Amino acid sequence: TPSERGGHSSTQSSHRLLAYSDALISIIATVMILPVAHTKVQDNEELKESLQVLLTTKIAVYLMTFLIVTVAWASHIRLFQVIERIDDCLALMNLACMMLITFLPYTFSLMATFPENILGIVLFCACDMVLGLIQALIVVYGFSRPFLLNDQIQVSENQVFYKHHILKVIMRVPIMCFFASIFSLIFFQLSYVILAIVIFLPYISQSLKWCRGKAIGQVEETPDSMLFYTYQLNEPLSKERVEAFSDGVFAIVATLLILDICEDNVPDPATVKEQYSGSLVAALQVYGPEYLAYFGSFTTVGLLWFVHHSLFLHVIKATRFMGLLNTFSLAFVGGLPLAYQLTHEFPRNSRNELEAIQISCVIIFFAGFFQLAIWVAALFCERETLHPYVRYGGREHTFMLAKLSLYPCVALGAFFSTCFLSKFSASIFHLMEITVPFAFLLLRLLVRGGLALLRLMFCPDR
Amino acid sequence: TPSERGGHSSTQSSHRLLAYSDALISIIATVMILPVAHTKVQDNEELKESLQVLLTTKIAVYLMTFLIVTVAWASHIRLFQVIERIDDCLALMNLACMMLITFLPYTFSLMATFPENILGIVLFCACDMVLGLIQALIVVYGFSRPFLLNDQIQVSENQVFYKHHILKVIMRVPIMCFFASIFSLIFFQLSYVILAIVIFLPYISQSLKWCRGKAIGQVEETPDSMLFYTYQLNEPLSKERVEAFSDGVFAIVATLLILDICEDNVPDPATVKEQYSGSLVAALQVYGPEYLAYFGSFTTVGLLWFVHHSLFLHVIKATRFMGLLNTFSLAFVGGLPLAYQLTHEFPRNSRNELEAIQISCVIIFFAGFFQLAIWVAALFCERETLHPYVRYGGREHTFMLAKLSLYPCVALGAFFSTCFLSKFSASIFHLMEITVPFAFLLLRLLVRGGLALLRLMFCPDR
Repeated sequence: TPSERGGHSSTQSSHRLLAYSDALISIIATVMILPVAHTKVQDNEELKESLQVLLTTKIAVYLMTFLIVTVAWASHIRLFQVIERIDDCLALMNLACMMLITFLPYTFSLMATFPENILGIVLFCACDMVLGLIQALIVVYGFSRPFLLNDQIQVSENQVFYKHHILKVIMRVPIMCFFASIFSLIFFQLSYVILAIVIFLPYISQSLKWCRGKAIGQVEETPDSMLFYTYQLNEPLSKERVEAFSDGVFAIVATLLILDICEDNVPDPATVKEQYSGSLVAALQVYGPEYLAYFGSFTTVGLLWFVHHSLFLHVIKATRFMGLLNTFSLAFVGGLPLAYQLTHEFPRNSRNELEAIQISCVIIFFAGFFQLAIWVAALFCERETLHPYVRYGGREHTFMLAKLSLYPCVALGAFFSTCFLSKFSASIFHLMEITVPFAFLLLRLLVRGGLALLRLMFCPDR
Repeated sequence: TPSERGGHSSTQSSHRLLAYSDALISIIATVMILPVAHTKVQDNEELKESLQVLLTTKIAVYLMTFLIVTVAWASHIRLFQVIERIDDCLALMNLACMMLITFLPYTFSLMATFPENILGIVLFCACDMVLGLIQALIVVYGFSRPFLLNDQIQVSENQVFYKHHILKVIMRVPIMCFFASIFSLIFFQLSYVILAIVIFLPYISQSLKWCRGKAIGQVEETPDSMLFYTYQLNEPLSKERVEAFSDGVFAIVATLLILDICEDNVPDPATVKEQYSGSLVAALQVYGPEYLAYFGSFTTVGLLWFVHHSLFLHVIKATRFMGLLNTFSLAFVGGLPLAYQLTHEFPRNSRNELEAIQISCVIIFFAGFFQLAIWVAALFCERETLHPYVRYGGREHTFMLAKLSLYPCVALGAFFSTCFLSKFSASIFHLMEITVPFAFLLLRLLVRGGLALLRLMFCPDR
């Protein structure tokens, strides 16, 4: 009741706590690209060989870290969809959660560097266990003060049932981690299997359920018990938090680019005096390609954000599946600092340069492609998820499709150009990136003209 | 009119655009501490000497960069208090602004490294000029489509007057930068004076106005013309944006700490095999102080965020002066990665270690002190700015004071301990940082007990 709630002056809206957590988690997930991007690739050797080493270890570690952190983020969302108001005690417990989540990438990289040493596994499991225990503590605390809970649960009669259901789901992770750390003493390969199960558990259980549903006929779940913590793909996801998380990723990626410029490309006064006889312009000319690469990459990050922003502006309700596709898209966006490093690192007209451009194209293509996939997934249940304007036949439908497919098309075009045009260089690629905003400005005109032309050709009566 | 506005389907709420801009600008302002923190201080020389070099150049550059970026952020807030809705075109123009703002720190560090070379000045001025021109373009574009504007201006009769007033204020900066870049060809010292005036212009003009007001009696401004772009200290500031900006700074500071751990403290497998005969535990023991420093620093950042969150929860309306104090507080929070680097870098029980702890204490003290100052400033006009609970005599008043003064007190206490206790070490300091959260948990009990005691002593009748 509002009067009761007003009585607890220390009870607070959780909005800002969640925004801060989103910012922290998104930055943590993304900065782990830095150790990959800072790997020095030797000029003289072929990119392919050194790239294989990179691909097999560091990129895989980056992607896994991104995945693990987003899984932790998803469980954080679930938790705070149940607990909607906070007090000081919950805020402090949440900060403890954040500390452990930011420490996860380190334990994971220990595990990846020393796969046969049990210390990495034990540390990773210990982090997970403590994290799970704190989350369970938050749930118990929340249910002991019902005015903190979601309104739906607050008025529900079987609060105890909810509490047990949620605790059961949360405690699965620490218990499995406990077994994983015990097995690491006996037979450590088994620990990795258990940890993989922990991460993919929601998806595995969902596909099993789906298969069973197909085999023995659709079994309807009781809707009351399954409102929270269902792991179903159409379970609603807080759109606000998906946006905040995505903003964090885009912002930190844009910043990592300029950070490299600020750290590496301010020449030493002594060097300028000796090598360039005091001419700063001459010294900075060496960095020309880097500036171009910076402006090109920043434009790409900015416009991918712009497309994401346009898309989510017309999304009414996000589902878990859309969230998953969004995570994949963001993982590739997080790879852009690597693309930036590679494209300006190699001498002009080398084979390495072309391959670096191809890698950039692949990264941009998948970042854009998964954004398009979010839209396609949303169209499948458009009545619930999309604004009328962008549904089939809505007046913004074609325009949105054009916006979303622009980047995948540009990336594909650039990729094939590298195959056929031997003169294609990193500078041309970056100039191309810089001109894309004008394509966005012209897009509306082009789409309108195209539609008018189509209408004129196929139904000239209207 | 709403019907007209609904007709423009491409018109959007600017909420997310602003959140993204806040995230970007806060991260840019803060990551510039990295070049300072990564300066290697030699073990054998005295901290004092190398510190003097650090202090005079790099820290000054960091603080100036932080100030310049926050000035750009403040002008961004002003702009989007006038333009409340956006369309695709404005979103793209805003991204162009963001690109220039992220480039500002680089041009400034060029200027700082080569103070006598005009190239740095010219680049910095060019950035500022283009930024001002884009902002003017945004204003012209906004006024040509009045449905994008603030409701107050939209219904006002003298829109043209507003437009000219705002354009006049915005164009001041590019015009002064233009003169600065021209003077750099003739007499470059004058350029610096002009640039300093540009940055401090609002404060200078305000203090001049204040002096004139005191000298010839208070002159009341016409309220209609002065709603926007007044630079008065009690001009309202969007509380939401101050929170978003602060969240960004706290989040990136917390992340920079773990980034250092992930990049530097994963031992090389070959080294572990050779030096520690394959024992990972032994290899990691070397990093013990770093882990402790990480947990201590993370706790401090988290709790400073917590105090900030508690304070702004009870703030109804933020003013420009509170925003300025908040900027000072955040500039010191941004210095925490430097404190972290310094405290775990030196051998135990050296004089350097004690001095590093003292620097940390100073940073934490000022970060907390300016938060307290925000509250004091808010109390001066408490009817407008604060929630009744925390005003004088409100039931949370004393508790809030205790919360805000905890960190300055702890920092002062640690500082004096280093002076008197020669056994005080970095480990003790970090352990102290880790125990502060429990102080926060106990604070409510302590305050209640203290108040009850006071009441019992002075007015036993109630």
